[in-house]
Parts: sequence; structure tokens; C-alpha cells
Amino acid sequence: MSLLLTGNSASLSEEELDEYSDGTVKLRNSNIELMDQDILYHLALGSESHDLQEMFGDVKFVCMGGTPKRMENFAHFIMNEIGYKLPAGTQLQDISAYSYRYSMYKVGPVLCVSHGMGTPSVSILMHEMIKLMYHAKCKDPVFIRIGTCGGIGVDGGTVIITEDALDGQLRNSHEFTILGKTIHRPAKLDKKLARELKSLASPDDPYDTIIGKTLCTNDFYEGQGRLDGAFCDFSENEKMAYLEKLRENGVVNIEMESTIFAALTHHAGIKAAVVCVALLNRLNGDQVNAPKEVMNEWQARPQILVSRYIRKVLTHNGQLKALFGHQGSIKSPRRFKLVQQESQAHE
Amino acid sequence: MSLLLTGNSASLSEEELDEYSDGTVKLRNSNIELMDQDILYHLALGSESHDLQEMFGDVKFVCMGGTPKRMENFAHFIMNEIGYKLPAGTQLQDISAYSYRYSMYKVGPVLCVSHGMGTPSVSILMHEMIKLMYHAKCKDPVFIRIGTCGGIGVDGGTVIITEDALDGQLRNSHEFTILGKTIHRPAKLDKKLARELKSLASPDDPYDTIIGKTLCTNDFYEGQGRLDGAFCDFSENEKMAYLEKLRENGVVNIEMESTIFAALTHHAGIKAAVVCVALLNRLNGDQVNAPKEVMNEWQARPQILVSRYIRKVLTHNGQLKALFGHQGSIKSPRRFKLVQQESQAHE
Repeated sequence: MSLLLTGNSASLSEEELDEYSDGTVKLRNSNIELMDQDILYHLALGSESHDLQEMFGDVKFVCMGGTPKRMENFAHFIMNEIGYKLPAGTQLQDISAYSYRYSMYKVGPVLCVSHGMGTPSVSILMHEMIKLMYHAKCKDPVFIRIGTCGGIGVDGGTVIITEDALDGQLRNSHEFTILGKTIHRPAKLDKKLARELKSLASPDDPYDTIIGKTLCTNDFYEGQGRLDGAFCDFSENEKMAYLEKLRENGVVNIEMESTIFAALTHHAGIKAAVVCVALLNRLNGDQVNAPKEVMNEWQARPQILVSRYIRKVLTHNGQLKALFGHQGSIKSPRRFKLVQQESQAHE
Repeated sequence: MSLLLTGNSASLSEEELDEYSDGTVKLRNSNIELMDQDILYHLALGSESHDLQEMFGDVKFVCMGGTPKRMENFAHFIMNEIGYKLPAGTQLQDISAYSYRYSMYKVGPVLCVSHGMGTPSVSILMHEMIKLMYHAKCKDPVFIRIGTCGGIGVDGGTVIITEDALDGQLRNSHEFTILGKTIHRPAKLDKKLARELKSLASPDDPYDTIIGKTLCTNDFYEGQGRLDGAFCDFSENEKMAYLEKLRENGVVNIEMESTIFAALTHHAGIKAAVVCVALLNRLNGDQVNAPKEVMNEWQARPQILVSRYIRKVLTHNGQLKALFGHQGSIKSPRRFKLVQQESQAHE
């Protein structure tokens, strides 16, 4: 069940487009097949310069987040969680370093990619990631965005799984302008995956994990009703009325990437989810000012949930044991540390 | 003539908003004055944690571009061009490194900042940069975006100064969604500055420098009529008809940031320009595949034009000589190299 190329999608019904009848992901562009080479310009990869199937054919999970730093952290975290072992004398490398745009780390079946801020930045990445999945013949990859957000009526530190992604007009779709024409594509995420992620929250977690609607905006200040941007033409009362209206519509958080992430994964038939942590409760203020250590701990929470999901799937497929199969390179942590200290003393 | 805080802009006419009557930049948000502190979250700076006036009060030019790498290169380039000398034993530092979002380098009166890809990413940065100019009491700063683009009917390597920034519907404005309502702000750039930049192109430059209209899109693939994205629902003929229509409307290039950059600088009364280099002629194809060395040389071209402008202004103000006033630390390049070699041999 590898990725399939389909022809012009105009001839397919919306029903056919949505279903995962054979579990495959659809690259809806027959032009790609006819090209000499396909340069994934913003990833610093190419279909003829790189053996993409050899490099990425085993990818099962594509995890995305805003900053290169967060995704590098997640790569090291998930490496530990799934017990993935690098060959002696190697370290993770940013695969897309030479693009100077996105960062990409690969930890066995998990690809960790930064997507920058805002829907256009995510849009470019999604086109190239979906083409990468196609060229690499990946089977049933799951895409998960791990992000940060402002909460609506929830405490900072709350983990929020997106049920539906809404645009600025509260529509469950993303607006595209193609050849000067405006179209909408449904911003649908996989509801079963959202419930599965929710079920992996532990009663012992010292924070809440909830499912709700996510508002996706094109700006952090005026676009999210903040009073503290360079410009502000509305009053605090108007702001609060707007946030209350969002809450009445079931919106529990606001971020800047979910509609395009949902619309493009859905259009490609890829199972996807968005898991964010709230950095503040917007009903209480605008500025994000939790201490750095607290923020770092909060940002680890969506990563913990996603790692539980990845471990569960790999265990179910009998793959976790295979990854864990090799012994680690450290036989005795105590002696390992002594050797390090000894070595440093001889500098 | 430092930046002024004004009240709610609803009471001002568009005429008043546009003019630079006293040369000042307007921060149209009276809330900022009332805040205990203003955290510029995405820049890793704060109005009470940092002495912003001391750090940035001398800034005259704010140069922005997509990637951290390009702006770091530009910082080193402009340092050489204006003869700015760092104290012995120091090097440039990424001021916003701890934001993990944007990179910022300061070379005397020139601030070099990366803005990421797409209008939302630029929007966040612009709000914080305009607030930074306000807190630092900068006088008449000029904002210039240095970018890359696809050309329409112009060769790769052509330098393009934006006359007007157009959105996907060819409107000379940027669309904002604020508290759920859609508004438009004019995406106007400073025409005099554009002509001044054009006048600094040299007949000896082995490439063209032109002025024209710029289309700003929210996507690189479908949004720019490319046939090589993950999805493509239009034919090559439809694409070419669209690009021809753009050309008939005076569009000479396509990028992804100009409307928000123009709209927010104009709204703040800041003089601004966009200078891009075309990486390809879109009438000939979609994929960017010039060799790396050629691309690097092309990307230096807008930087060269902007450096001529900065040198001209500093010379006119008698400031260039002041910057050049100090002797460099290298008295003899030949002997400097010999000492380096000698030193390396003793490793």
C-alpha cells in the first residue's frame, strides 16, 4: 500500500477523495510522474539526487512543530522513548540544513520537521513533505503537528487536541487562492486519531488533556484580538466579547497553522492530528510571561502524549522490540562517567 | 522627531494617517504606554528587561529577509561596506537567538532581521519591530525587505524593486481579519525610495534592475500557479494564461511577503521598500534549479543595491566618515596572514 499518483482530481467525487479505501495516500498531481527530477527546494532534497526511498521509506510518523529547536529536542526525546539506537560515533544531523528554511531530523520511523510560523510557511512544507512521502513510497504515514497556542478558558499548561480547525470566519476550512480564484478545502482532522490520543492522557498527568475546536489566525496580535500589538483599533470590551464568542462556539485554543495542516493532509488522504499546549489563558491576558523553565516543561507535554501514541503503534506492530533489540553502548553509567571525567582531566 | 504614541486611529482621516508631516513614525496603540512591561516575545527582548533605547536608539535602517543565514551574510557584508568596526575580540551575535524564531544582527545603524516565510510570519515580526522602534525612540528608520522571488518575463538574476504590492486578487492591499471582521489596509510602499534605489543601479552591473508590480501569495505551489506541487488541478495552458494575465497587469515578480510588509510599514508611517532578485523566469518553468554558486551570486545583488543606498544616506549625513574614522585592526594583510599560518603550525 504505497502512495499512488492519481490523475486530475476534477473527475473524482468528494466522497472518493475522502475515503481511505485502500489505505493509500494520494498525490493528486500527475505532472510529477512526467518530470525528469523533482527538487524539494525548501528541504534541500531531490528525487534524482537522493535515494529518497532508501532514506525515508521506513517513515511511519511525521511530527511537525514551529521552531527548529523544538523539533531537535523532540527528535532526541523520541529517540530515547522508542529506544532507537544510532550507530557508534554518529549523531543526528539536520537533513535540511542546506535549505536554511526548515530543519528535519530522522529517528528511525519518526521524522521531526520544523514548519516555521503561519499557514503559508506550513503550506510550502506540506507540499514538499507529501511529495517526499510519495517519492519514498511511505506506507500509511501519520502526520502530527506539535505546537503551542493561546488557550480560551483553559489554564496555561493544558494540552489541547484539535477536533476541528476553524479559520478567522469560524469556517471549518482553509481558503486557497489558485490562479486568482478563491476556493475552500475542508480542514478536517482524523477524529479517531484525536480520540486515541486523548485516551493516552494519564490520570496521573498533573495537567488536563482536552479535545476542542482550534481557531487558526494569520497574525498573533490584531488577528488574535491582542491589545498589545503595534496597532490596536478595538477596546478591551470588544476583545473580551470576541473571545467569549469564540468560547460559545466551542473554541478552546488559538494558533496559526491548523487549517492548512488539516486541509492539505485531508486532501492527500493522510491521517493527521494537531496537539498543542496552551501558553496562557487568553481570557486572563495577552502577554506570554510564564518563566522559561515552566514554559519548557509545558512544551514537553504534547511531546509526551505523542510519544505514548508512537510507542503504542510500534508495540502493536511488534516494531518497538526490534528497535529496542540492540544493547545500548553504555554498559555501566557510573563507569561511563568516570571515564569521561578521567579523559577531561587529561585535556 | 522620535516615535509618537497616538490614540485610537478611528478619529484620524486616511490623509492624516498617510502623511509624514513631522517625519515621525506612529505606534497606533495607546495601550502600550499603560503596560508595566512590553515583552517582544518573538524577539527575546523586553521593554523593562533590556535598555532598548541604549541598544537600538541609533538604528536608521532595518533590513529584513527570509532566512537567518541570508541576514547573517548581509550583516557581515554591510559591516564591510560601511566600514563598521567591532571592538577587538568581539563578533556579531544573534540578538534574538533565544527566541528560536527570528535572527537579528546589529551593525551600527543597520539592523538585519530574518522574517521567515509568508505574511503571518512577517506580521508577527513587524508588530514587534515597530514596537521596538518605539521603545528605542528611533528617528525616521527606513525598512527594506531583501528577498528572492520568481520573475514574470524577466531573467533569473534580475533585481526587482517593488512599485506596488498586490494580493492574490490583484488588489493593492493586504486583507486582515480582526475580531472576526475582514478589513483591508493599503499595501503602499514609498515611491520616492523606490526611484532612489533604482537610480543606484550602475550601468556597469552585469544584470538589470527594474521597478514593477509584485504579486504576494500565500503559497509557493498552487498559489503561484506551479505545476509541480503535491496537488495540481489546473492545466499548463491555464497556468500560462494566468501568468500572462499577471504580466498584462504589470506584475514582474511573485513572492510571499510584500503586502503585509507594505501595509504595516505604511500604517505606521514608516518609509519602506522591497528589493528582490528573481531566481527564475516563471514563463519558462517552475523548478528553481540554477547552480548554488549562481544562486549565491544572484542573492548578493539586492544586498549590493541596498548597501549603496545605506552608504549614500550615511555619507549625506556625514556619518559614514565617523564609522570609517577608526583604523581597522589589520595593519598589513600580508603579515597578518603570515602570523596566522605561523600560529596554526604550532598547534
